[in-house]
Amino acid sequence: MGSVGGPARRPRRTLMTGYHHEKDQVRRRLRRIEGQIRGLQRMVDEDSYCIEVLTQVSAVTKALQSVALQLLDDHLGHCVQDAIARGGADADAKVAEASQAIARLMRS
Amino acid sequence: MGSVGGPARRPRRTLMTGYHHEKDQVRRRLRRIEGQIRGLQRMVDEDSYCIEVLTQVSAVTKALQSVALQLLDDHLGHCVQDAIARGGADADAKVAEASQAIARLMRS
Amino acid sequence: MGSVGGPARRPRRTLMTGYHHEKDQVRRRLRRIEGQIRGLQRMVDEDSYCIEVLTQVSAVTKALQSVALQLLDDHLGHCVQDAIARGGADADAKVAEASQAIARLMRS
Amino acid sequence: MGSVGGPARRPRRTLMTGYHHEKDQVRRRLRRIEGQIRGLQRMVDEDSYCIEVLTQVSAVTKALQSVALQLLDDHLGHCVQDAIARGGADADAKVAEASQAIARLMRS
Repeated sequence: MGSVGGPARRPRRTLMTGYHHEKDQVRRRLRRIEGQIRGLQRMVDEDSYCIEVLTQVSAVTKALQSVALQLLDDHLGHCVQDAIARGGADADAKVAEASQAIARLMRS
Repeated sequence: MGSVGGPARRPRRTLMTGYHHEKDQVRRRLRRIEGQIRGLQRMVDEDSYCIEVLTQVSAVTKALQSVALQLLDDHLGHCVQDAIARGGADADAKVAEASQAIARLMRS
Repeated sequence: MGSVGGPARRPRRTLMTGYHHEKDQVRRRLRRIEGQIRGLQRMVDEDSYCIEVLTQVSAVTKALQSVALQLLDDHLGHCVQDAIARGGADADAKVAEASQAIARLMRS
Repeated sequence: MGSVGGPARRPRRTLMTGYHHEKDQVRRRLRRIEGQIRGLQRMVDEDSYCIEVLTQVSAVTKALQSVALQLLDDHLGHCVQDAIARGGADADAKVAEASQAIARLMRS
């Protein structure tokens, strides 16, 4: 997997996946969220009361934010941390990129 | 006040569905969000870069919030407005209930 | 300024202030938030640790959102409710205006 | 780790202030927010229309979130980055602490 920084550095992508060790958990959470979205569609099909639908939308939004926080934590603890430990210009770029992602999440 | 729905069911529910006239649009939006969640799962399966996954999570969160705002607008413009126009204790209850739903959305 | 609903109801502004009965409480909350903001400035003056400053920023943001929810609840329960009870085109306008305010709050 | 700073002062605090180089800007932004909060109190004193007050609350909330994002960016780019570059157990602790601060901000 190695040869970080080498001229033929192809496998960068796998190296840069902070959620690697928790991939199954992230997948499980996303599958559950998919189920919740389908539940929302059923509620609408069955003319469920607006407030009940809205309560469920709040729950799904929270679940999504929670996945985002996990991905962000993994990203900081692996990708960003590794880039900084390696040093060089990439470290600053990784920090700036993470800040921008946090800004997007806070505004969504 | 209309026996909306069959005679054998409490008509109140249908009466109280503010998104009635936009049901198809709400369904379409939820189906699109379901597709986006499946897209997220594919991204994780393919070890997509954390920041790309997070950008997509932000987009889905925004889409969900936007559905919530539509449902809330419909709810205020139909269920709450009807309850107030009818008057009585139900009017205050509907306003309190809407405020609580807004609080949940703002905290999610 | 009284005579709300009376035949000569000119002072529309007062009529349209949903937080009228809780003005003192809103003022107190805003004064407390002003104190928290000054506390933040002191923290920065004294080179407080970033995370402590951020924790305090989160607390102030929550306090502000809480004031917003109170104002919104008052607005729905008085201004919007009154406009609907009076009927006419103003009722729809008030609902649309409230929805837009909620959207701004959810995006901030 | 390391006697950063002179021997007679506790070095840790100054070392750990990520916003050090932008202290004046952070102070200016907080002073402006304080002015906005005072403006809000004036609006309430003058019985300004609820929606106008709410619009201003949204603006202040955005300004606060923007200060938070600046502090967070500075923190990641200095305190966290320095801790990681130094290595050791402190690096992981700093990342975990930053993640928790981000979670608090996203939930506020």
